[in-house]
Amino acid sequence: MSNPQFKKIVIFGTGLIGGSFALALRKANAVGEVVGFGRSETTLQQARQLGIIDRIGQEVAAEVGDADLVLLATPVGQMAELMARIAPHLGAHTLVTDGGSTKSDVVREVYAQLGSRVAQFVPAHPIAGAEKSGAGAALADLYQGRKVVLTPLPENSQDAVARVRRAWELCGAVVSELTPQQHDAVFAAVSHLPHLLSFALVHDLAQRDNRDLLLSFAASGFRDFTRIAASSPEMWRDICMANRDALMEELRRYADELYVLFRALEQHDAAKLEEVFSEARNVRGNWTGQ
Amino acid sequence: MSNPQFKKIVIFGTGLIGGSFALALRKANAVGEVVGFGRSETTLQQARQLGIIDRIGQEVAAEVGDADLVLLATPVGQMAELMARIAPHLGAHTLVTDGGSTKSDVVREVYAQLGSRVAQFVPAHPIAGAEKSGAGAALADLYQGRKVVLTPLPENSQDAVARVRRAWELCGAVVSELTPQQHDAVFAAVSHLPHLLSFALVHDLAQRDNRDLLLSFAASGFRDFTRIAASSPEMWRDICMANRDALMEELRRYADELYVLFRALEQHDAAKLEEVFSEARNVRGNWTGQ
Repeated sequence: MSNPQFKKIVIFGTGLIGGSFALALRKANAVGEVVGFGRSETTLQQARQLGIIDRIGQEVAAEVGDADLVLLATPVGQMAELMARIAPHLGAHTLVTDGGSTKSDVVREVYAQLGSRVAQFVPAHPIAGAEKSGAGAALADLYQGRKVVLTPLPENSQDAVARVRRAWELCGAVVSELTPQQHDAVFAAVSHLPHLLSFALVHDLAQRDNRDLLLSFAASGFRDFTRIAASSPEMWRDICMANRDALMEELRRYADELYVLFRALEQHDAAKLEEVFSEARNVRGNWTGQ
Repeated sequence: MSNPQFKKIVIFGTGLIGGSFALALRKANAVGEVVGFGRSETTLQQARQLGIIDRIGQEVAAEVGDADLVLLATPVGQMAELMARIAPHLGAHTLVTDGGSTKSDVVREVYAQLGSRVAQFVPAHPIAGAEKSGAGAALADLYQGRKVVLTPLPENSQDAVARVRRAWELCGAVVSELTPQQHDAVFAAVSHLPHLLSFALVHDLAQRDNRDLLLSFAASGFRDFTRIAASSPEMWRDICMANRDALMEELRRYADELYVLFRALEQHDAAKLEEVFSEARNVRGNWTGQ
């Protein structure tokens, strides 16, 4: 391949997020060599067989020095350790990005672990949740038309942000920028809270003596409302803990909202219910998201 | 047509529920003549043009006396008045059923309005919600494989229940029986509460100064969780008011559930979160409903 934009990238975690990133950059003819690291030898072998990576990395120190781009695509809980491992060996021009669903906690670790290399880390959150995971689920077009949020640091140069943005855009993503705090507040409201509420409803029903009867009459409304309650408990535990302040604030607001509806029922206030439902319907009906 | 099981049926409300009932019985060659009543002349004309009904009824008194079956498929709020209108004219062998989403309130009106004809009313709830409504949305196979719950009254004869059950089965439905109170408790938990929670989330977001920013980052989890928040505000106002006691009890339980999660966040209790999420995921994953 002649003159790819990224001669060498190193991916930590070659599952859905990392694997799809590599496949997308390959499809765009934007990458020379892809080296993969990971905890699971099986996943790494699979990633190599699927053409996601060219090589399984052996020594972090030997691989990240001449890489153009490093992607951390592991669970957020493993990133601090990885940052500490790569920090001493990053090349002067090596950029790092990540695929974590929360950003304040990742940024906290960047400052704690990367030392003089902080400016080279441009945090990212690709909004491409999927029920599947693993290298076998990776898709070259996973990010096509999907949003990726960058949360640049004050230390990042404009050029560093532009190059990381370009990598995600080459994957087909629509890239925007927020501060880490904005990011976490936004996703607490539109993603983390709904997941918590959906888990809570199913858990509530699951506790009951007549749960089989209840579930036998659940229909399409229940199906859609609770689809996200089939998400990974470990991943959502970590997301909720990582973003607990923003999520607790959302829960407080939501409890207030439910109390308004409870009071309307208690007081036979049908007009209030209709007002709330109508406003929700209008906003949901006009929403043009995915 | 030779010897259909129902020589004449009369349908009040020829929209999605009533229209699909008529089309399904026609497709099963189970009905002779279908007469329609309704508030909207436009809907009735459309129902006739679509072959849902044979005739638009003019006089209730003249039509329900020789009908085998009457279906009340209007909003529940209109049923009391309809019951009062049909009661004096029902034939001795005419059975009545309905398509209301709540049952205790319908049954209360049956006792209030039908006098000596109570035994002829076999309440029903077809679980076939759809976002569309009106005669144009009616489908011969709307009830195919869907659940219909009958909530028979102590006054109903076994034969009356069997004939109403047969009508719904001819529509393709899987029919089961609950008491009206069981029905309302079950649907408060698996349908009415999720609708209320979904409306509440969207309303909560809709109140905020940054709602456009929030909604721009909402993704597939939000989409599915809030699909039911695009439901009819009037219909859901009526359902919530009709089933308010059971729904208030569900809201109380759900608020307790949310408080457990709030406390887990507050106390950094990641294990508790994972326990709740895992149990929810297992139950949701094993659910084999629609």
